[in-house]
Amino acid sequence: MTTMRAVRFEAYKQFPALKDVEKPVPGPGEVLLKVAGAGACHSDVAVYSEFEPGMNPLVDPEYTLGHETSGWVEELGDGVVGLEIGSAQLVYGPTGCGRCPACSRGQDTYCQNAGAMRAAAVGLGRDGGMAEYVAVPARNLVPLGDADPIPASALADAGLTPYHAVKLALPKLGRPGASALVVGLGGLGLMAVQIIKALTGATVIATDMKEEAMAQAEVYGAVTVPGGEGQVERIREVTGGRGVDAAFDFVGVGPTVRTALDTAAMQSRVTIVGIGNGSTTDWSFLSTPYEAELVSTYWGTVEELHEVARLYRDGKIEPLYTTYSMEDALQAYRDLEAGKVAGRAVVVPHGRP
Amino acid sequence: MTTMRAVRFEAYKQFPALKDVEKPVPGPGEVLLKVAGAGACHSDVAVYSEFEPGMNPLVDPEYTLGHETSGWVEELGDGVVGLEIGSAQLVYGPTGCGRCPACSRGQDTYCQNAGAMRAAAVGLGRDGGMAEYVAVPARNLVPLGDADPIPASALADAGLTPYHAVKLALPKLGRPGASALVVGLGGLGLMAVQIIKALTGATVIATDMKEEAMAQAEVYGAVTVPGGEGQVERIREVTGGRGVDAAFDFVGVGPTVRTALDTAAMQSRVTIVGIGNGSTTDWSFLSTPYEAELVSTYWGTVEELHEVARLYRDGKIEPLYTTYSMEDALQAYRDLEAGKVAGRAVVVPHGRP
Amino acid sequence: MTTMRAVRFEAYKQFPALKDVEKPVPGPGEVLLKVAGAGACHSDVAVYSEFEPGMNPLVDPEYTLGHETSGWVEELGDGVVGLEIGSAQLVYGPTGCGRCPACSRGQDTYCQNAGAMRAAAVGLGRDGGMAEYVAVPARNLVPLGDADPIPASALADAGLTPYHAVKLALPKLGRPGASALVVGLGGLGLMAVQIIKALTGATVIATDMKEEAMAQAEVYGAVTVPGGEGQVERIREVTGGRGVDAAFDFVGVGPTVRTALDTAAMQSRVTIVGIGNGSTTDWSFLSTPYEAELVSTYWGTVEELHEVARLYRDGKIEPLYTTYSMEDALQAYRDLEAGKVAGRAVVVPHGRP
Amino acid sequence: MTTMRAVRFEAYKQFPALKDVEKPVPGPGEVLLKVAGAGACHSDVAVYSEFEPGMNPLVDPEYTLGHETSGWVEELGDGVVGLEIGSAQLVYGPTGCGRCPACSRGQDTYCQNAGAMRAAAVGLGRDGGMAEYVAVPARNLVPLGDADPIPASALADAGLTPYHAVKLALPKLGRPGASALVVGLGGLGLMAVQIIKALTGATVIATDMKEEAMAQAEVYGAVTVPGGEGQVERIREVTGGRGVDAAFDFVGVGPTVRTALDTAAMQSRVTIVGIGNGSTTDWSFLSTPYEAELVSTYWGTVEELHEVARLYRDGKIEPLYTTYSMEDALQAYRDLEAGKVAGRAVVVPHGRP
Repeated sequence: MTTMRAVRFEAYKQFPALKDVEKPVPGPGEVLLKVAGAGACHSDVAVYSEFEPGMNPLVDPEYTLGHETSGWVEELGDGVVGLEIGSAQLVYGPTGCGRCPACSRGQDTYCQNAGAMRAAAVGLGRDGGMAEYVAVPARNLVPLGDADPIPASALADAGLTPYHAVKLALPKLGRPGASALVVGLGGLGLMAVQIIKALTGATVIATDMKEEAMAQAEVYGAVTVPGGEGQVERIREVTGGRGVDAAFDFVGVGPTVRTALDTAAMQSRVTIVGIGNGSTTDWSFLSTPYEAELVSTYWGTVEELHEVARLYRDGKIEPLYTTYSMEDALQAYRDLEAGKVAGRAVVVPHGRP
Repeated sequence: MTTMRAVRFEAYKQFPALKDVEKPVPGPGEVLLKVAGAGACHSDVAVYSEFEPGMNPLVDPEYTLGHETSGWVEELGDGVVGLEIGSAQLVYGPTGCGRCPACSRGQDTYCQNAGAMRAAAVGLGRDGGMAEYVAVPARNLVPLGDADPIPASALADAGLTPYHAVKLALPKLGRPGASALVVGLGGLGLMAVQIIKALTGATVIATDMKEEAMAQAEVYGAVTVPGGEGQVERIREVTGGRGVDAAFDFVGVGPTVRTALDTAAMQSRVTIVGIGNGSTTDWSFLSTPYEAELVSTYWGTVEELHEVARLYRDGKIEPLYTTYSMEDALQAYRDLEAGKVAGRAVVVPHGRP
Repeated sequence: MTTMRAVRFEAYKQFPALKDVEKPVPGPGEVLLKVAGAGACHSDVAVYSEFEPGMNPLVDPEYTLGHETSGWVEELGDGVVGLEIGSAQLVYGPTGCGRCPACSRGQDTYCQNAGAMRAAAVGLGRDGGMAEYVAVPARNLVPLGDADPIPASALADAGLTPYHAVKLALPKLGRPGASALVVGLGGLGLMAVQIIKALTGATVIATDMKEEAMAQAEVYGAVTVPGGEGQVERIREVTGGRGVDAAFDFVGVGPTVRTALDTAAMQSRVTIVGIGNGSTTDWSFLSTPYEAELVSTYWGTVEELHEVARLYRDGKIEPLYTTYSMEDALQAYRDLEAGKVAGRAVVVPHGRP
Repeated sequence: MTTMRAVRFEAYKQFPALKDVEKPVPGPGEVLLKVAGAGACHSDVAVYSEFEPGMNPLVDPEYTLGHETSGWVEELGDGVVGLEIGSAQLVYGPTGCGRCPACSRGQDTYCQNAGAMRAAAVGLGRDGGMAEYVAVPARNLVPLGDADPIPASALADAGLTPYHAVKLALPKLGRPGASALVVGLGGLGLMAVQIIKALTGATVIATDMKEEAMAQAEVYGAVTVPGGEGQVERIREVTGGRGVDAAFDFVGVGPTVRTALDTAAMQSRVTIVGIGNGSTTDWSFLSTPYEAELVSTYWGTVEELHEVARLYRDGKIEPLYTTYSMEDALQAYRDLEAGKVAGRAVVVPHGRP
């Protein structure tokens, strides 16, 4: 038996552990990846520290964490053809039944047989990328060509999630003079700014409480408006009074949703991406602009991950990240919990090749 | 000076009066209609009994009520050509500036110069159809051909408003097995049922507290589910557990919006049409199906009124209505207030020709 | 070794043969189906009688014919879970790489790695359903529930192809008074009539040279116009002079494409589905209505096959078909060549269970 | 009687004349503009030198030319309110009935009562802008704010026509890695390059026979490919072999349409904007990429002209132009015929204010 190092989620309400586990063997239709990068995500922290048994059986422990993964093809499982050994790949996390209408269009996030599945995603219910190797379904792979796979790992969630939200709002952003609001400039929000700039001619207005985050958004071409008093008025001012055509809220708490709704134009789209700790917002006919759609989105599709990879390979988006060695992987989670990570915390089990 | 009878809205918080007023003369670009039918609408009641000075200057009295009007062309104002005297026409109510982007696409409801206008619509801020004659902009006319103009009057609001809401939701209803929920089976809701049946193959689920309304919805081909306990579960059951692809709430109070959200499928559209007395609903990421759009709509466009007229002329929708003579016009509003009107109350100043 | 009967395509320009071949064993990710029905399609005839080596390597012989297949799950290959033995399934024919953007959205027809594949579809380059058993990728299965799988087999191509074409044209058919033209009332055309009636309120105009075919289209609710002189004028007349909003040509030869273009409305969509023996049509700016899109489509997606199956299970479409026993399978192709099949020729290797 | 100078189209097959005519008086619903700029367009030349009586009664002489007009509001006709005297306006040319469904959405180009009209547009059948003053319907005005109205005049056709074509193709250009082909880099083509760059992140490939035109396209950010041998291959190469997602052909002759079709990707859109002297192109199922839509477009809508004006006011598009005085107006047409105009020939009857 060959063993490898892995970050294990062993029980709810318990910090993960770095352990020796058996190196996986790819099953039929699967591919073994030598992990290039594995991003640590806030949702991992939410799962291990806030979830309880019974909340979502699809993410019940025990398994290896890591739902943002890139790697090099190491070995092909039975029935897999057409993948070159050593080629760099990005992993689409969600793992649905593969056969229902949603999965058939590559949107495993909305798998209609989710109730019968045993995992939500690679790294959420089944072994993920926070290890030296990981076995994933071949249909979840997106080729990276000769682009650096290490920063790419962060795209699997922090790139795909805002991309999906932006893509659904694109029809609102094709008009001259259109504007988009991005609320919350963490990893996903900064990615959203870049994606909107890459795909449209819209003015991007970005807001956050942190000055460095706003400075970075400006580097990416956004106009920034600080939080606090007068925020709504200043955002509306940037739009010439009309309001924004698309808002993306990566925080999702009551006040941020309120800001998005209060700055929205008629016939706009207000997309809530941040889960916001279950907080709620008042909605009423009279206080909402006519035909402003309030909507949530969740992660994205396989095809969209191909498109995110294309943006990355073309140099149009860049993930901000800090690397950690395999042995320091738990420190990545500790830093994440402490809010001390600049950009995405990416574990690189094999360093740079 | 020629006079005529008209229902006048003279002051806020005051019941309208039937008066002799000067017969209008069509201005440049206007057409004088001999009124065939004028529908009495709940929003008239809201304006005269609930509004206060300063709430919305665009509907400030004094003027003749009636924003649901049909009539026969009586006289053409300067500059109007191509309209046959005596031809039957339906009136698009909203009257914007006529030149901004919204008006240019026939959506005066969202006129970008509304702040500079003196009226919201024919019968809302300027003299409407509750009179023997009315002068309206030629561009607000929709030809009725040889169809009966009297019931058609009700289409101007009670037909156009649900039509606009349904039209925007059509992309959700093109899938085999799709279903639509209609909440509130008054004039607009029953029209919505007919419109959805006319344009799509979707299953229509209709709900109301009144049994007769539900019986009528069944005549139009809807499956009905009564309000009260188990309502949400029964609606979901009709959809095979999936939820509805499009919901239309013609009431808009907290509990009806809740019903719509709780029965919505992922990636559906929940349209709130009823103003609901300003009541609010809690919205949160976690309690809303992914990508279910919550949105309001308001009235519709000129082109859509052409389309509504086409449905009517093809016999695919029928307004339910009760006629009142000009002298009984105030009784129409009294009955409306008392909830005693079967279908739409339509004033017919000239009876049937 | 267990053997079974199969219709083998052994060489170009050669009629297929009924042979004993080895019963297949499902590979990893595959499922063995006991065949319920296998439809014989004109494109099979084209491939074996008209194609030549080098034209399309993806369909080079030797293999078992049959790209319209339904069956019962007999055995699961390695790695396949969640499919009940004995359950009835419909087979999505196209077999792409499974990982490119097109395949990831279930549109293997447009696989971007087609050049590296060895087959175009189940029954086109790899063993198909004209046999007692067939092994297919699990991701190509669409469940049929308790609906009769024998007629369902015809849906895999003769249902999916028109469905895909209609689905892309749906935005043109949502307007009151909209009309659709169906040219060519063979199996696909008659299915198109039913699909349009099931999903929209549009008037369907159907045309063909055969009277029985037109009579059948009328049973499905179409208005029919015979071919020959005055055809274009009569079609336009049915539309009130406006022209059709969507045309579907299942023949695709010069004159039928011409008919479609000549009867198209401005801003319509003219979809050519029939290959038409490579014939061409003149297109020019001046002779084509403004913004009338001329476009081809080819087969469809996995998700759309789910939707076709839903229409069938709901009784909204019915394939017309004639069954042949396994031993008479070659007669099915002979009858097809002779134009003597009423509806689809479906081989039922195991009869009715 | 006050007279003014005007370029008169007096008879078919006859060069226009510079004459003294009566200064127009704005009718009801009209506005008198003091002309700022009037663009000379190739279609004027086609009408006066190639058309014959009976071809299109809507453009029958005699009238003042000029369908690309900007000006300052000089006087308001009866019934016109809300326009400031002296404000700069751009003129939407097409003049339909103003009441049919197409006109009601601001698309007078497709007026359904065109047969009953006496003119196609301001400057095409009714007096246009090649004069000191012009009277136009108020609903045809688009405000220019404080932007220079002289170059703006060229936007009325040379800006709006490519904008409309691009707008309808936007859904094809929202994908990372998308590319657009612009064939023909005259005034409209160079505008198309700028519009696509302003609204999308797509790669723009531009092609023409003239080197200066291509150099200008490169200034606007296009990749250029010269005409002639290898053109198709080089265009495909720029797209990585995939083909272009949207092609715009501003020439429209057989070979240019061929180039567009031969370089189109599957599921793309090929828009023919150039009339191409009535030349035709062969279309066939087998030689066209699957689902590549071949479509023509014509001019645009009022709302789109607002959007074009916005791009111009934001500095995102710039018309190239040469000015001519009123007395030199005929020289503008002579230079146009001789192919000697750099950019658009704009007549400025009042010089620069």
